[in-house]
Amino acid sequence: MRYSQLFVPTVKEIPADAEATSHQLMIRAGICRKVASGTYTYLPLGQRSLLKIIAIVREEINRAGAQEILVPSLQPLELWQRTGRSVDYGETMFRLDDRHGKGNVLGPTAEEVFTYLAAGEINSYKQLPINLYQISPKFRDEFRPRFGVIRSREFIMKDAYSFDADPEGLDKSYRAMYDAYCRIFTRCGLEYVIVEAESGEMGGAGSHQFTVPCESGEDTIVYTEDGSYAANLERAAVDPPAKEQTSGEVPPAHEVETPNVGTIEAVCAFLKTEPKDMVKTLVYAVGEEPVAVLVRGDHELNPEKLTQTLGGAHADLADEETIERVTGAKVGFAGPVGISEKVSKLIIDHAVAAMAAGVTGANRTDYHVRDVVPGRDFPLDGENVAVTDLRYAGEGDTHGGKKLLFKKGIEIGQVFKLGTKYSVKLGAKFLDEQGSEKPCLMGCYGIGVNRILASAIELANDENGIIWPVSIAPFEVLVTCVNQNEEDVARAAESIYQQLLDAGVDVLLDDRILRGGIKFKDADLIGIPVRVTVGKKSLAEGEVEIKLRCESERQQAPVAEAADKVIEIVAALKDKLKAE
Amino acid sequence: MRYSQLFVPTVKEIPADAEATSHQLMIRAGICRKVASGTYTYLPLGQRSLLKIIAIVREEINRAGAQEILVPSLQPLELWQRTGRSVDYGETMFRLDDRHGKGNVLGPTAEEVFTYLAAGEINSYKQLPINLYQISPKFRDEFRPRFGVIRSREFIMKDAYSFDADPEGLDKSYRAMYDAYCRIFTRCGLEYVIVEAESGEMGGAGSHQFTVPCESGEDTIVYTEDGSYAANLERAAVDPPAKEQTSGEVPPAHEVETPNVGTIEAVCAFLKTEPKDMVKTLVYAVGEEPVAVLVRGDHELNPEKLTQTLGGAHADLADEETIERVTGAKVGFAGPVGISEKVSKLIIDHAVAAMAAGVTGANRTDYHVRDVVPGRDFPLDGENVAVTDLRYAGEGDTHGGKKLLFKKGIEIGQVFKLGTKYSVKLGAKFLDEQGSEKPCLMGCYGIGVNRILASAIELANDENGIIWPVSIAPFEVLVTCVNQNEEDVARAAESIYQQLLDAGVDVLLDDRILRGGIKFKDADLIGIPVRVTVGKKSLAEGEVEIKLRCESERQQAPVAEAADKVIEIVAALKDKLKAE
Repeated sequence: MRYSQLFVPTVKEIPADAEATSHQLMIRAGICRKVASGTYTYLPLGQRSLLKIIAIVREEINRAGAQEILVPSLQPLELWQRTGRSVDYGETMFRLDDRHGKGNVLGPTAEEVFTYLAAGEINSYKQLPINLYQISPKFRDEFRPRFGVIRSREFIMKDAYSFDADPEGLDKSYRAMYDAYCRIFTRCGLEYVIVEAESGEMGGAGSHQFTVPCESGEDTIVYTEDGSYAANLERAAVDPPAKEQTSGEVPPAHEVETPNVGTIEAVCAFLKTEPKDMVKTLVYAVGEEPVAVLVRGDHELNPEKLTQTLGGAHADLADEETIERVTGAKVGFAGPVGISEKVSKLIIDHAVAAMAAGVTGANRTDYHVRDVVPGRDFPLDGENVAVTDLRYAGEGDTHGGKKLLFKKGIEIGQVFKLGTKYSVKLGAKFLDEQGSEKPCLMGCYGIGVNRILASAIELANDENGIIWPVSIAPFEVLVTCVNQNEEDVARAAESIYQQLLDAGVDVLLDDRILRGGIKFKDADLIGIPVRVTVGKKSLAEGEVEIKLRCESERQQAPVAEAADKVIEIVAALKDKLKAE
Repeated sequence: MRYSQLFVPTVKEIPADAEATSHQLMIRAGICRKVASGTYTYLPLGQRSLLKIIAIVREEINRAGAQEILVPSLQPLELWQRTGRSVDYGETMFRLDDRHGKGNVLGPTAEEVFTYLAAGEINSYKQLPINLYQISPKFRDEFRPRFGVIRSREFIMKDAYSFDADPEGLDKSYRAMYDAYCRIFTRCGLEYVIVEAESGEMGGAGSHQFTVPCESGEDTIVYTEDGSYAANLERAAVDPPAKEQTSGEVPPAHEVETPNVGTIEAVCAFLKTEPKDMVKTLVYAVGEEPVAVLVRGDHELNPEKLTQTLGGAHADLADEETIERVTGAKVGFAGPVGISEKVSKLIIDHAVAAMAAGVTGANRTDYHVRDVVPGRDFPLDGENVAVTDLRYAGEGDTHGGKKLLFKKGIEIGQVFKLGTKYSVKLGAKFLDEQGSEKPCLMGCYGIGVNRILASAIELANDENGIIWPVSIAPFEVLVTCVNQNEEDVARAAESIYQQLLDAGVDVLLDDRILRGGIKFKDADLIGIPVRVTVGKKSLAEGEVEIKLRCESERQQAPVAEAADKVIEIVAALKDKLKAE
């Protein structure tokens, strides 16, 4: 390809609305352009990299035994209603009625459609295992799209769904995807960590997340320094704190008037106490049932953990009316004393259970209670009471006695054991060897293709621009002709370009009639891994310059040997990114 | 790939809801499955063919100098409002508000977003010409999706948009796409015809349509037997009929009472006349302006021709109120006498102008007029009167004096000269060499990827199944092992399979433990171009059988030579589909 023919609108200024480094560089290097909030056009350089990433993903997923199909993005709402996810996804799922009034969604993922397909086509254990995948656009109406293509409203995802007859089969399918993911990310030149992401239906880690640690990441990885534990923030389990000791007997609980003082901050200010000495009482609705949840005033409830505790059931914060009915007070004055009798479940974070005493709402408008002792003033056990790990890990928390550390990262892939959740609801069943009907055991496996692109840029860049890994660079080699107006220089550059093309190297020739300085700036910005500089001066000595974007050294090579030398360098770069 | 690992759910019965042969065969051969009205899942065989088609399209479009990008499917409604197409597309365009209430559409095509991109990035003639394209899903809320993937609601389209500085440049860009399309369809093994599809803004044929003639087609090609003229039905121009002669003077026009008789059929029955002797007077609204249109009672107005006559303006049938205001009568009684003074334009089909006399509405409720003579009782010329070609071509019509013939076909591609319609509205301008600002001249070029698949099946099939062209077949070769249970037979099949794989042939090994008869039936149904049959009997004589799906003859080959022979055959098949 010739640069003079290539559409690469580079930009000097750092775009004002781009926070993340990758986002800034993708705009500046002419890789993408914003169309609207969270939607982007990929320009030729970006599209070239996307196609290379897709080729790697496809090759490795095929090698792992999965088969590519393609399901529509426009999906019947009815399938999502059958699994309950039309509710779970809430406003994040785009919905639209068609001209005949039928409800449709734009697939944010595709469990429903794949399972629907399996339900129609699979009937015998002989057809299992089977793993089907697609590489296609996904749509999510993010409340706040950000970081460029990292959290966008339309993106390309590889999503695979495995169907197995038994847990051993699922383990094998899961492992095959897990291994393929390692190969894919290695080949794409990414440094990544794998963390536990969720508990499985069948116990143990039912999900792993592949994350590229970097500052622009929205995900938080929680880990111990010795590497013995790593999980994402949603999953990271914390040790229960030691039971708080008191110097003496805690006085009996007693109400204090706190007129119009409902928030934690306001109560602390009013009663001169601290959030860590308060108990927050949250009322949730699980279907029609009210559930009360207690966390310490300075802690934040982790909704994933709550869902896990509820056996996967969806919980919404209860509406005002329900709260007032359950507590007998206005919102802001809920408390644990006596509440276990008003709700179907009382779920207590173990940090609350470890408190010696605390301030709580009084279940009476404009009143709080001081000196509420867990276990004395409200139960810590009983039929509908549970003490468990409910909150996000934070600074100072430990896991297995070891201090937890925190790191930002971009989630680029995730593998899940789904079990029978979807196959039961959508009827994906098979007859086993004994002739009895069973639901398929499913796994699902996603990779964010665009995030691979952004992560690679986050990981390798400098003040001048992008430093692409050779495997997903828009071009492997850039031949920069410094003096395009001088016939012999142009001819030498053209000859090297042709030799590289003939050898199958993906090469770009900068044949623009521009000053060398501009060409070098663009070269650094767009970050092609290997640059061959053909200039008047060195050419007079029969030489050209070869430079790797990731190194500062330059080397000279005789014109006649330049192409061979470059072919060698490209092969060596590729070799480094080989996956076993 | 091994058949035992491949997901190919074939079906014996012809699916009841599939009209088109291609649709039936795509279901039966396990190529696709319906998800909802007009949306389909492509199974592994279908996806393999789609990927091959996409590879051919990409290669040829790149070769023609266009650059691949990717724009979002989720597009701001606002861009479509700026070009007026949010109105033109009507209900065929999917629309949805996002969670913040912003209007979005699902791109049925992408002129707006590409032009928006050009408006932001192009500013100088030095950046022109440029041709950008994408291969991506498109969405159309068809009133009646039909013929399987031929008219569906979600499909893959290659759409390219060229931007040029002058008409010569546009001609060149247009020609480059036109030529690339010929190469693409030839390589895909399609027989196609190219017809004029629309007049250009700059005169002459501004659009060509590539159509595969076949019975399941929804498009009609109109042509002369000698091949000197071919156009689609929307475009096909017909000669004006000879002026009708009368034996004597036509009596003066006179009203007759036709109580409650408004339709052509009813009037004919009531007055004992024929549709061909009537004049239909249609009132349209172009924006706020009423326009009257006359066509003969037995003719059908061609809305494309009307739009063309109106210089591209959108015309809707006027509402009842407007019709009553313009005609002074209830709907059903509009007529041409005196109407030119009530409308901004009177447009007359030349077949009406050629009538000696006719029956028309009287612009008076419950009355018609007999013996209305064009030119005598209403004008055939004047400032706001035009006589032109307004109707669909029909049996008996001629073009250039030659009889027109009709044929059904599937439109697989179309190239358009857009001119400055979009660049003006969306501000895609550039400074020319003299420093003056001009809008880009645009062209747009579409290919229906899924329709290529369906067309190929429509063109080549028999009672047993599909007959794929080698270039887009899911596999090039099928090795059928007739006796998978017999070790030596399985080993011989495996060896040929491996030799073919090593030679880079795209081969499928039918290693299923099933009766030969079932395997042969499946083989014919899925239509792989070359079949190698390895069976016990012939193997005992050291031979295997080779058969082309498109021929009935079989040939024997020694086991050791089989792979080489097949490689030769595949090469020869590919050679036939080479494009210059």
